Amino acid sequence: MQPFGNFQPKNPDYVVEVQRVLTSAPFIQQLGLKAQQISPGLCYSSLDIREDHQQQDGFVHAGVQATLCDHTAGAAGVTLIAEGKRVLTAEFKINLLRPASGRRLICQSAVLKPGNTLIIAESMLFALPQEESPETEWSLVAKATVTLAVV
Amino acid sequence: MQPFGNFQPKNPDYVVEVQRVLTSAPFIQQLGLKAQQISPGLCYSSLDIREDHQQQDGFVHAGVQATLCDHTAGAAGVTLIAEGKRVLTAEFKINLLRPASGRRLICQSAVLKPGNTLIIAESMLFALPQEESPETEWSLVAKATVTLAVV
Amino acid sequence: MQPFGNFQPKNPDYVVEVQRVLTSAPFIQQLGLKAQQISPGLCYSSLDIREDHQQQDGFVHAGVQATLCDHTAGAAGVTLIAEGKRVLTAEFKINLLRPASGRRLICQSAVLKPGNTLIIAESMLFALPQEESPETEWSLVAKATVTLAVV
Amino acid sequence: MQPFGNFQPKNPDYVVEVQRVLTSAPFIQQLGLKAQQISPGLCYSSLDIREDHQQQDGFVHAGVQATLCDHTAGAAGVTLIAEGKRVLTAEFKINLLRPASGRRLICQSAVLKPGNTLIIAESMLFALPQEESPETEWSLVAKATVTLAVV
Repeated sequence: MQPFGNFQPKNPDYVVEVQRVLTSAPFIQQLGLKAQQISPGLCYSSLDIREDHQQQDGFVHAGVQATLCDHTAGAAGVTLIAEGKRVLTAEFKINLLRPASGRRLICQSAVLKPGNTLIIAESMLFALPQEESPETEWSLVAKATVTLAVV
Repeated sequence: MQPFGNFQPKNPDYVVEVQRVLTSAPFIQQLGLKAQQISPGLCYSSLDIREDHQQQDGFVHAGVQATLCDHTAGAAGVTLIAEGKRVLTAEFKINLLRPASGRRLICQSAVLKPGNTLIIAESMLFALPQEESPETEWSLVAKATVTLAVV
Repeated sequence: MQPFGNFQPKNPDYVVEVQRVLTSAPFIQQLGLKAQQISPGLCYSSLDIREDHQQQDGFVHAGVQATLCDHTAGAAGVTLIAEGKRVLTAEFKINLLRPASGRRLICQSAVLKPGNTLIIAESMLFALPQEESPETEWSLVAKATVTLAVV
Repeated sequence: MQPFGNFQPKNPDYVVEVQRVLTSAPFIQQLGLKAQQISPGLCYSSLDIREDHQQQDGFVHAGVQATLCDHTAGAAGVTLIAEGKRVLTAEFKINLLRPASGRRLICQSAVLKPGNTLIIAESMLFALPQEESPETEWSLVAKATVTLAVV
């Protein structure tokens, strides 16, 4: 996923703030989300799939997928807010495109539209298959659009 | 929340199937969701709020709220499907109306439109405050609309 | 549809402002939307179905349904804003539940959550059948959730 | 917008069918939508902005934007369905990113996930400014995600 614009961070220490958001949320810690990349308007994260992420049929629960899409989009939003500000999710929408399974999920989030009171971001969620091979293809399992309120 | 119609279950053992869905999903077990009520086109669940449900500012994470709204809506959908069928979430949208905190969340889900291939359900999520008193009021913290694919 | 709270209008002339919003929008005039009821946090509208509202299969176009749900929700939001403020739709989601046809559409919109910067409203869209009879039943054809930005 | 995959049309005459969908819907005719490009999994359309497309503040009404995003996404979906099948919008979600005005809207829709019963498509809506100049930039005014039911 590419950034949707040439965004300039307002907070020179935005990386520190994003890492705080990614590591200090107890629910996210327990889930096991890891930061992969942080740049202005962009955040990538990953999650090694565990059994306790599953729903009743052995696939990754939609709630886990939604959490990744929401939290990583929030982190992408945090790259663009001023010091002392926070973001709260106002609403999000997620399409679950294919049953998600495999060994790892990768979430790529990008700010679609920055703003002083609202930030719109998108997340694409990919699954990596159990077996790694040279031909391994990522599978797009979900896509989300997230409206963040800057407070 | 009231049922949106006088729905007739197709599976006489729908309660057993809903309980399976509510108890056998590892992610839901770990979260701590409990069934409160199951009837045709309706499911209520509850969650005692724990620290590991929180985001970085001490409120219940949007992903936890989304999981409750999605899973309980799915359970409401399961009350109306034939034996041997399953539901998968195709997409959902959630509005986070107020920061969620307190001692317990209650999720009320109702089928808005049943169908052979698609079921639309709604979820209302309420927070109960930390202190219980005769005047205790439930606070509506989120509302979601869920599209379920019957497979 | 009932109001979701006992809302107090900030603008004593809110009815005048809502009527301005409902009658001065050229696209809405051309469509033929009529106000039915205006009260704090609530707006009902109606539309007599014409051939030029249809999609290619003879049903009311999803865009017409979306317009009614969006605009009537906006009008419900306008009942609760201060004088001199306006609302703009930030985002909405609509579920088309059944093919819409008949002689008239009724849209009922209610504010779910008021706010100084964001207002969340819901719309229920009903179709009235071609033939009127004592047993005539309204059919719920669409439901929408609308996020309004107060500017 | 690029196609999200190397999609193969099932109907060799898909262009004819898409053109039928784009030209035979009375609401779309009246609005003035024109086809710009049709290929497997993709449809572009345009709309010359008229006064009767406006809301009360002089911007293009959200309902017009939603109609373009929905109908063009539907047309993109039609490129991939078998002969004799039709698509109906099950639900869509749209974010209005900036007030839309200017001389023309361009809608680019692409199928994100094809399927036998559900097709997921995305639409990006751009506005072209009133004055044309070598530096004219398109402005992204809305983005939508559309779930189509194949019937």
